[in-house]
Amino acid sequence: MRTTVGIIGAGPAGLLLARLLHRAGIDSVVLESRDRAYVEHRQRAGILEQGTVDVLRAAGAGERMDREGLRHDGIELRFDRRRHRVDFPALTGGRSVTVYAQTEVCRDLIALQLREGGPLLFEAEALAVEGAEGIRPRIPFRRHGREDVLECDYAVGCDGFWGVARAAFPAALSRVFERSYPYAWLGILADVAPSHDELVYARHERGFALLSMRSPAVSRLYLQVPAGTEAGQWGDEEIWDELERRFETGDHWRLERGPVTQKSVTPMRSFVHEPMRHGRLFLAGDAAHIVPPTGAKGLNLAVGDVVTLARALAHEKETGSPDLLDAYSATCLRRVWQAERFSCDMTTLLHRAPDGTPFDARLQLARLERIAASRAAETDLAEAYTGFPLG
Amino acid sequence: MRTTVGIIGAGPAGLLLARLLHRAGIDSVVLESRDRAYVEHRQRAGILEQGTVDVLRAAGAGERMDREGLRHDGIELRFDRRRHRVDFPALTGGRSVTVYAQTEVCRDLIALQLREGGPLLFEAEALAVEGAEGIRPRIPFRRHGREDVLECDYAVGCDGFWGVARAAFPAALSRVFERSYPYAWLGILADVAPSHDELVYARHERGFALLSMRSPAVSRLYLQVPAGTEAGQWGDEEIWDELERRFETGDHWRLERGPVTQKSVTPMRSFVHEPMRHGRLFLAGDAAHIVPPTGAKGLNLAVGDVVTLARALAHEKETGSPDLLDAYSATCLRRVWQAERFSCDMTTLLHRAPDGTPFDARLQLARLERIAASRAAETDLAEAYTGFPLG
Repeated sequence: MRTTVGIIGAGPAGLLLARLLHRAGIDSVVLESRDRAYVEHRQRAGILEQGTVDVLRAAGAGERMDREGLRHDGIELRFDRRRHRVDFPALTGGRSVTVYAQTEVCRDLIALQLREGGPLLFEAEALAVEGAEGIRPRIPFRRHGREDVLECDYAVGCDGFWGVARAAFPAALSRVFERSYPYAWLGILADVAPSHDELVYARHERGFALLSMRSPAVSRLYLQVPAGTEAGQWGDEEIWDELERRFETGDHWRLERGPVTQKSVTPMRSFVHEPMRHGRLFLAGDAAHIVPPTGAKGLNLAVGDVVTLARALAHEKETGSPDLLDAYSATCLRRVWQAERFSCDMTTLLHRAPDGTPFDARLQLARLERIAASRAAETDLAEAYTGFPLG
Repeated sequence: MRTTVGIIGAGPAGLLLARLLHRAGIDSVVLESRDRAYVEHRQRAGILEQGTVDVLRAAGAGERMDREGLRHDGIELRFDRRRHRVDFPALTGGRSVTVYAQTEVCRDLIALQLREGGPLLFEAEALAVEGAEGIRPRIPFRRHGREDVLECDYAVGCDGFWGVARAAFPAALSRVFERSYPYAWLGILADVAPSHDELVYARHERGFALLSMRSPAVSRLYLQVPAGTEAGQWGDEEIWDELERRFETGDHWRLERGPVTQKSVTPMRSFVHEPMRHGRLFLAGDAAHIVPPTGAKGLNLAVGDVVTLARALAHEKETGSPDLLDAYSATCLRRVWQAERFSCDMTTLLHRAPDGTPFDARLQLARLERIAASRAAETDLAEAYTGFPLG
C-alpha cells in the first residue's frame, strides 16, 4: 500500500489528522490495531477547550457536538467546606469549554472518515516504522493474520503511550521527561443527573474528588485512590459514601446517587518525549506526551499537535517549503510544556500526597485561597483551563 | 519593672511595635539581649514592600528612608540566557518596592525610641515568659549579671526563631509547620556600583543567583550553595566567576567586580507556628514564622504582624473590646500563609534542587515562560512581590 501520510492509530489524534489532511487534499491511510467497537467505546476525557471546539467545527466534525455538547462557563473549586466558582468568560474575554466525551468525538470522526475520507483500517496492527531518515518511510503491519507494508512520504505516530512509533526514534536522539504520582483516579459512570451543573474539583483531607458529567442524565465521578488500586476493591455504596465526604460543603448541597454502570482506574503520569519529530516520522498526542487528567488537557494537546502538523504538511505541499515541518517539534513542545506545567500544578494543588507534610497541606489551602481572592491568580487558571493558544 | 506591653527583642518587629504603641499612647519596655552596636550592624533583608514604606512613614520613621532608599519599579527574571522585566506599577496599579536595608530601619527606629519612646534596654536577656494565661504576664530577664522581672499587661515575643517567647506556648496548643531546603545562600557585600539598576533573579542550571544592592555604590550578591556550606570555602574571585556564569545573557550585559567587604551564608527554611497568641502572650515576626529569603518577605511580614497588634491593643485601650486581640492570630496567619506560599514558590521556581529531575527543570522553564508570556501570571507575581494587603 502507498499513501502520502501514513497514520498509526485511530484515536482522536489520528482521526482528526486524517480529517484535516483530507480537507487539505492530502491522502492518508489510518492503521488501527483495535476493532471499531473498541475504539468507539473506550472512555477517556470529556472536556474540550474552546480552541478544540473551533477546530472540530471548522473540520466539519462539529454537528453532533454542537447539538449534544454542554457548554460550561466555569468550574467550582471546593476546599475547606467552601465553594468558589471560576467564571471563565468573565476572566478570559469570553472563552469557555465544552463537555463532550472523547469517545463521541471519535465516533463522529470515524463516521466522517468512512464516508468521505481515505482508508481507515481497523484491526491493522502497525509493527514498526522503518526508514524515517529516508524519503519513504515504511510501516509494516499485520491484519487478519496477514503481513503487509504501508509506504508513505510521512509517517505519523498517533499510537499512544504504548505505541511502536516512538520506538523508531534513535536512543541517542530521544530525551524522556517524566513524573509519576503515588495515586490514581477511580472513576465511575452513573445513571443519575449530575448534582451540579458544572465540574466540581474538591480538595479534601481525605483526598481529591471530581464531579463531572457525560450528559444531563449521566454523571461521571472520580475519587483519588492509592496507585495500584483495582476498581473491584471498591463497592458502589462505598464509592458514593466517600464521594459524599469529600464533596462536603458548609451549605445544603447534596450529592445525588444512582446506578453505577462503569467503574475503572486511571493511573496518573506526566511524560514528555523530545523531540516530537525524527526525519519523516512525527509523533502526536499520547505517543509524545502524557498529562495527569486533572487539567483536562490530554485530548486538547493531541488536537493542538495534529492541527500544527496538518498546517505544516499543507504548507509543504503548497509552497515546497519544509519550514513548518522543521518547526513542528519546537512549536508543539512550547504548548505541551505549558499543559504539563498546568496539569502538574492542578494535580498537586488538589490531591493529598501520601508523604505530604502539614506544611504542604497549608500551602494547598493558601494556593486555593489565593485563587479565590486574586483576579490575577484566578485568570491565570482560567486561561490555562480554557486553553493555551495553538501554534 | 512594670509596663503595659513588654516586648522581647529589638529587631524591626519589636522596635516598630514600640514605636507604634508610643504613638498610640501605650507604654512599653523593650528587652534586647544583644548590645546596640550588634543590632545596628547585623545584615538582613533589604526590600520594603509599598505597605511597609507607608507604615514607617506614618510612624514618623521614614525621613532617612525617603532620602536614601531606592525606589524600584520592577525586577528582572533571567533564565535560558533571556531577560524578562516585571514592571510592578504597570501590573499593580502603581505599587513599587524600596531598597533600604533592615539594618538601616533598625538604626532609625532605635534613634527615635531612645529620643522619644519608652525604655529600650540592650544587653537585657529575657529568660522566659510566665503567666501568659493570667492577667499579668511576667518576663524574668538578666542584665549586667543581675536578674530582674518585667511585669506587663501583655507580653510580645519579637525575639526571633531562637527566642524564648514561643517556648511559653503549651505543647498541646502549638502546631508547627516547616520545610527545609537542601541549599543556602552565600551572600557578599561588595564596594562596586550594582551592575543593574533593579534586582536580577537568575535561574541557571548551575544554581540560583541574585543581584541586589545596598546603595548606588554597594552591591549585594547571592549564590545558591549546598546547605552546610561555610562562607570561607569560597574565595572572592571564585564567587565572582560563578556569579558571572549564572547571570549569563544573550546580550552584552556585564557583571562589574569590586572588593568584597563581607561574606556570609543564609540558611533556607520555611516555618510557621500556630497560633500566634496564647492568653496575653503574642508572637510577631521571626518568632512565629520564617520564610526563605527569595521572596523578600521576612521583614515585611514582621511589619504586618506588629501593625495588626498595635491596632488591636489601641482598639482594646479605646473601647475595652478584646475583639481585635482575639482575632490577631487568625488575621496575621492569613497573610503569613500567602507569604509562605509565595516565598516557597519563588524558591522552587529559581533554585536547582540537588535531587531535581530533568522534568522538574523543564517545569521551571515553563513557569518562567508563562510569567513572561501571560499578563495574569505576571500580575500574580507582581502583586505578591509588592505585598499582600495588611489585616
